[in-house]
Amino acid sequence: MNDLFLRACRGEAVERLPVWLMRQAGRYLPEYRAVREKADFLTLCRTPELAAEVTLQPVRILGVDAAILFADILLPLEAMGAELQFVKGDGPSFPNPVRTREDVARLRDPDVDETLGYVFDAMRLVRRELEGRIPVIGFGGTPWTLAAYLVEGGGSKHFDKLLAWSYADPEGLGVLLDRIADVSIAYLNRQVDAGAQALQLFDTWGGLLDLDRWRALALPPLRKIVQGIAGRVPLIYYVNGGGHLLEGMKELPVDVLSVDWRQPLSRVRQVVGSRTLQGNFDPAALLGPIPGIERRARQVIEEGRGGGHIMNLGHGILPMTPVENAKAFVNAVQSTPAPPLPA
Amino acid sequence: MNDLFLRACRGEAVERLPVWLMRQAGRYLPEYRAVREKADFLTLCRTPELAAEVTLQPVRILGVDAAILFADILLPLEAMGAELQFVKGDGPSFPNPVRTREDVARLRDPDVDETLGYVFDAMRLVRRELEGRIPVIGFGGTPWTLAAYLVEGGGSKHFDKLLAWSYADPEGLGVLLDRIADVSIAYLNRQVDAGAQALQLFDTWGGLLDLDRWRALALPPLRKIVQGIAGRVPLIYYVNGGGHLLEGMKELPVDVLSVDWRQPLSRVRQVVGSRTLQGNFDPAALLGPIPGIERRARQVIEEGRGGGHIMNLGHGILPMTPVENAKAFVNAVQSTPAPPLPA
Repeated sequence: MNDLFLRACRGEAVERLPVWLMRQAGRYLPEYRAVREKADFLTLCRTPELAAEVTLQPVRILGVDAAILFADILLPLEAMGAELQFVKGDGPSFPNPVRTREDVARLRDPDVDETLGYVFDAMRLVRRELEGRIPVIGFGGTPWTLAAYLVEGGGSKHFDKLLAWSYADPEGLGVLLDRIADVSIAYLNRQVDAGAQALQLFDTWGGLLDLDRWRALALPPLRKIVQGIAGRVPLIYYVNGGGHLLEGMKELPVDVLSVDWRQPLSRVRQVVGSRTLQGNFDPAALLGPIPGIERRARQVIEEGRGGGHIMNLGHGILPMTPVENAKAFVNAVQSTPAPPLPA
Repeated sequence: MNDLFLRACRGEAVERLPVWLMRQAGRYLPEYRAVREKADFLTLCRTPELAAEVTLQPVRILGVDAAILFADILLPLEAMGAELQFVKGDGPSFPNPVRTREDVARLRDPDVDETLGYVFDAMRLVRRELEGRIPVIGFGGTPWTLAAYLVEGGGSKHFDKLLAWSYADPEGLGVLLDRIADVSIAYLNRQVDAGAQALQLFDTWGGLLDLDRWRALALPPLRKIVQGIAGRVPLIYYVNGGGHLLEGMKELPVDVLSVDWRQPLSRVRQVVGSRTLQGNFDPAALLGPIPGIERRARQVIEEGRGGGHIMNLGHGILPMTPVENAKAFVNAVQSTPAPPLPA
C-alpha cells in the first residue's frame, strides 16, 4: 500500500512527496467527458457506479497518490431542502435562496443516510476497487462557503447578498452556518464510516473575509466540525485567496493547511511553522511547456521545506489542461526526493 | 478650494482625511440609473455631456473630496482596434480576442485625440463645472488588467487563456503589455492636459499573479507608464486581492498605494512604510446599519495611522448600496480629525 499521503498528513517522514490534484476527476480528462456525455452533473453525483468510475480515472491515468471521491460540495444543502440545479455553462443555482432567519427555519435537518446515501455508496465502491492501493479522501465545503452559494442563489461576482447579511444580522447568518456545520458533521462522519481515510474542507470563499471577520463568522462552525470529526481521520483545510488569513488558519486544529498559489510555501511556513502544508503549484503553470512544469514542481518542493508537504495545485486543475502536462507534473514530483523534515 | 485630496497624495498633513469612493458614479445612485435609461453604457462613455453629468452626481449628492472622471478602463483597447461590446448583464466582451503575436501585430497605435477625444472633452467639462472646488482624477487600467480582458475576450472566472499565454510565451504577451503601456502613456497624458489633477491605475487582476510573476509580467509596463507620466500629477496604483504583492508595490515609484479591504492598513504599513495609502473600507460594510458604518470608518482611520491616507473603499461601491449609507460613510470620515503624521 502507498501510504505516503497519510504519512505526510501526520507529519511523518516520506521518501518523496505524495501528490494529487484538486479536481483531478474533471473535464480536462477525455474519459471524464465521455461519462458526462451519458449523464448530467447531478446524475453523475447521484449514481455511485459513475461517481466511483470518475473518481478512479485519474488514479489510473495520472498515477496520483490519493483518490478524492467525486461529489459536489453543495449536495448537503440539497439534503437540507434547498432545491439545487446545475445549468449547463452557468454552474450551480438555488432557485430559492436562503436570506432570512425565516428561510433558515424552513431548512430540514436531514437524515444523511436517506438523503446522501449515494455518496457513501460511491465511497464504498471506490475503496473496494482500490483494494487499499492508495488512500481515498472524502470532503465537504465549509459552512461559510456553502452559505455563500445558498444565500446568493448560486455563484456570484461579489457575494453581496451574503456580505450584506453578514453585516446586517451576523447572528442570524450564524444560525445558518451552525446548522450547516451540524449537517456537515453527520455527512463527513458517514463518509469516514464508508471508508474515507482523510477529509478535506473546501473554503472557496473564505478569502472574501478579513481576518477579524473570518474569525467571527467562518471559524466557529469550522471548529465545531473539527470537534465533530474528533480526530477519526486527518483533516485538511483549504482556502482560496486566504493569504491574509494564515494566522487564523494556524489556530485551527487541523492536520494539513492547503493554500493557493499566490504566495511561496516558504512564506506560508513563516506564519504557520512546521504544520503539513498542501499545494501550491499554480494550476495555470500546467498550461505551459513541460520543462517549465518540471522545473516549477521542483521549486515548489524546495519552497515547502521545513515540515510535512503534500504536493497539489493551489486551485482546481483548469479544464483546458493537457493531460500529458498533468502527467508530467505528477511524474516530476514522484521522481524528486522529499527534503528532510526539521530535526 | 478643497485640496485635501491632493495634499494627502503628496503626503502632506491634513486636518481630516479626504474621502471618495471607487465607482462613486454608478448604479447605486438613482440619478445615475436615470441617465442610463436614456443611454447605453458605451454611449454614456462617449458623450462628454453625459459622462460629465454622472461624474458630478456623487460630488453633489455625497459631497466627496475628489471627482473621478466617468469612463471605462477598456476604451483604449477599442482605440487600438479591438471591437468592444457591453452586453446587458454580462459585462464587457471583445468578440475578437487577442491571443497570438499575430493578433498583437494587427492592433493599431491610435492617435488618442482622434479615438478617445470624447474622454478629454468630458474631463474639460468636469473641470469647468467644478471651478476648482475639488480635484478631478483621471484613470486607466494597468496593461496586465487590460490584457486580461482582451485575451479572454471579456471577464472570466479563471483567466485561463491569459495565464496559459503567460506561461507558454511570456515574451509574446510582453509585446502586448508593452504596446498597451505606450497607448496608456499617451491616453493618460492627454487626460492631464485636459485637466486631470491625479491619475489612478486600476489593476483589477494583478492579484492573479504571485509576486515573482507580477514582477516579471505586470511591473515592467507599469514602470514604463510611471516614467511616461514623469511626475506631472500624483499617481495612485490600485490592486485588488494584492495582499501578497505589497513588497513589489512598495518598489513602484507612485505617490499612493490603494489596497483592498482584506488586510488592515496597519498591516499594509508594516510592509510599505509611511507611503500614502488609499482605502480600505469594506464596500460590503456599507450594506449594514449606519452606526456600524460610522464605527468602522473611524476604525479604518485609526488603522491608517503612520502616513498619508486617502479614505476610500477597498473595491468599487456595490450596486445595492443604499445612498444614505454612502452618505453616512462620507460624513463619518469628514467629521473625524486625521491622525497626526509621523514626526
